[in-house]
Amino acid sequence: MKTRAAVAWAANQPLSIETVDLAGPSAGEVLVEIMATGICHTDAYTLSGLDSEGKFPAILGHEGAGIVREVGAGVTSVKVGDHVIPLYTPECRNCKTCLSQRSNLCTAIRSTQGQGVMPDGTSRFACESGPVFHYMGCSTFSNFTVLPEIAVAKVRADAPFEKICYIGCGVTTGIGAVIYTAKVWPGANVVVFGLGGIGLNVIQGARMVGADKIIGVDLNPAKVEMARKFGMTDFVNPNDVGQDKVVQAIVDLTDGGADFSFDATGNVNVMRQALECCHRGWGQSIIIGVAEAGKEIATRPFQLVTGRVWKGTAFGGARGRTDVPKIVDWYMEGKINIDDLITHTMPLEEINTAFDLMHEGKSIRSVVVF
Amino acid sequence: MKTRAAVAWAANQPLSIETVDLAGPSAGEVLVEIMATGICHTDAYTLSGLDSEGKFPAILGHEGAGIVREVGAGVTSVKVGDHVIPLYTPECRNCKTCLSQRSNLCTAIRSTQGQGVMPDGTSRFACESGPVFHYMGCSTFSNFTVLPEIAVAKVRADAPFEKICYIGCGVTTGIGAVIYTAKVWPGANVVVFGLGGIGLNVIQGARMVGADKIIGVDLNPAKVEMARKFGMTDFVNPNDVGQDKVVQAIVDLTDGGADFSFDATGNVNVMRQALECCHRGWGQSIIIGVAEAGKEIATRPFQLVTGRVWKGTAFGGARGRTDVPKIVDWYMEGKINIDDLITHTMPLEEINTAFDLMHEGKSIRSVVVF
Repeated sequence: MKTRAAVAWAANQPLSIETVDLAGPSAGEVLVEIMATGICHTDAYTLSGLDSEGKFPAILGHEGAGIVREVGAGVTSVKVGDHVIPLYTPECRNCKTCLSQRSNLCTAIRSTQGQGVMPDGTSRFACESGPVFHYMGCSTFSNFTVLPEIAVAKVRADAPFEKICYIGCGVTTGIGAVIYTAKVWPGANVVVFGLGGIGLNVIQGARMVGADKIIGVDLNPAKVEMARKFGMTDFVNPNDVGQDKVVQAIVDLTDGGADFSFDATGNVNVMRQALECCHRGWGQSIIIGVAEAGKEIATRPFQLVTGRVWKGTAFGGARGRTDVPKIVDWYMEGKINIDDLITHTMPLEEINTAFDLMHEGKSIRSVVVF
Repeated sequence: MKTRAAVAWAANQPLSIETVDLAGPSAGEVLVEIMATGICHTDAYTLSGLDSEGKFPAILGHEGAGIVREVGAGVTSVKVGDHVIPLYTPECRNCKTCLSQRSNLCTAIRSTQGQGVMPDGTSRFACESGPVFHYMGCSTFSNFTVLPEIAVAKVRADAPFEKICYIGCGVTTGIGAVIYTAKVWPGANVVVFGLGGIGLNVIQGARMVGADKIIGVDLNPAKVEMARKFGMTDFVNPNDVGQDKVVQAIVDLTDGGADFSFDATGNVNVMRQALECCHRGWGQSIIIGVAEAGKEIATRPFQLVTGRVWKGTAFGGARGRTDVPKIVDWYMEGKINIDDLITHTMPLEEINTAFDLMHEGKSIRSVVVF
């Protein structure tokens, strides 16, 4: 079949709207009509050429929602007509990691996914010049895409695609970091570094589970209003207190340090502050942000010996097929706010505008509606 | 009263056996006759002058066992005649940290303990030239010492002092790191860097809780025999596999990485290897060793984002008054081996020999019997 898609022909080039060939689903795969897709920093990172695993030409996009239109042989967990969210972190429920019940980082299709192909080693996408690579196993910048059955989460049919697509990455990453990775408890003091889309989702996750103080840290005071709306109780601007006094400011605000801190900046110096502002004895710091290639985090081991814990999270520690449908429910029940985070919507033809808005800091999240 | 004690008059000087004055216990304090004391690397570290908190003159020693000989006003948890182990990490059961039930790092007397004095701000020890400082709240290199009630663990009376004194630090640090901090599960794969006294206790802790593979890493093949006796199943010598291939060797031995790793070396480069040999998704690395002042640990944040956890432990995460008596029971029941770790015993007059043996690598643990 043919499908419209935004193709990334090469690094640092605008995406190009094309009609490409799409082969139908093989055994264990499904064809999904993508109804809406978010545009995420990770797409921009790969498009920039800095991602050493990035391959071109490719169809980017990993934050979508759509409808199953065809299923391959042996598919049992979804059927034609089901509403689904594609999962860049699949959940096979059979690999060593899934069976460990200690991590969401399913390895069933990791190697081929990283190479931009389906589990059989080939791409379903092609154009006149040859195959086009998949991206993060999703390629949601295509109106139709093919995914392994284990890489789609079935969700309720009454949820609006142009909102719940954001659960495919950003919402789950932020909220999941709070509830699945950190397991923040009611009454905890929480600090969030970086008040972008991920940081705001950390904040509303912390509010949802009953955190006490929810302290936001950002250089930009313009972020304060939205952050307060999502649950931030206190704000620290490093430019006001002094970069070398951020840790002390947080320790003072929390009577000894944060129970949990989250880095949503990707800056390794901030990651260090996030660890060191944690409470002696039990404070945990969770790294969400993706650092530049080659950058390293550092601290004195004394910080850990005196009880602080350094962790990270990917896709919020969520098991896609199990947890994503619950987060969709929470949105539909009004427990979490997505609408205010989606600041721009546009047709596929204007997808490059979404990247511009992101780079200019004008959007929290842009969504393409097909 | 008067008591014999080994006094550290100044950094880098041999200890001097003296008769010093000891004031009796104030309210909430107990007088303990120390029957035996271990000599630990931490004593040597402070004696070397590198410990920025070290104060002189002081009576060092923090790994003892003895008998309560007098109790101050209001003491209720122990009585004259009770056998006790002094606790450099007390357990008040009332401070924010104790009540958190998330950490053993009781803060009730931390500030005065760090200054070498009792909670009222004064020392009980004195000699002709003036006061002599306490050390780590214990000063077990004195035949008699005074401690706050919250800093002694009451233990069974049939346990030999010259063995259980080691539970006052090294045994609990190693075994506790396994069972209280890491919570190693049956069937886990465990890696221990450094096969000294702490490492051997990590190994026997791992064996006690039913670990599967217990891999020891050390540069010295002479450590292998004892380590195997304590439960080590596999040995990796970085000189044999190559320093840059230690992580890969462990990943290969464990089918993907360690469930738990422990650093018992204090070397920050080893701490990094210990983290990076952990299994993607859930592997935890626990820092036990104390690094040189100013040294920092580092890694790529990707290591944490993909599920590894970096932790530390002090006194093995044990709550002294609650857990130390249990560990004494385990020794008496034959569940753990202390006898083979105590390679030398000597009278107080020969305590400087214990430091020599340690520096020469000839002892695992030396014990002074009063």
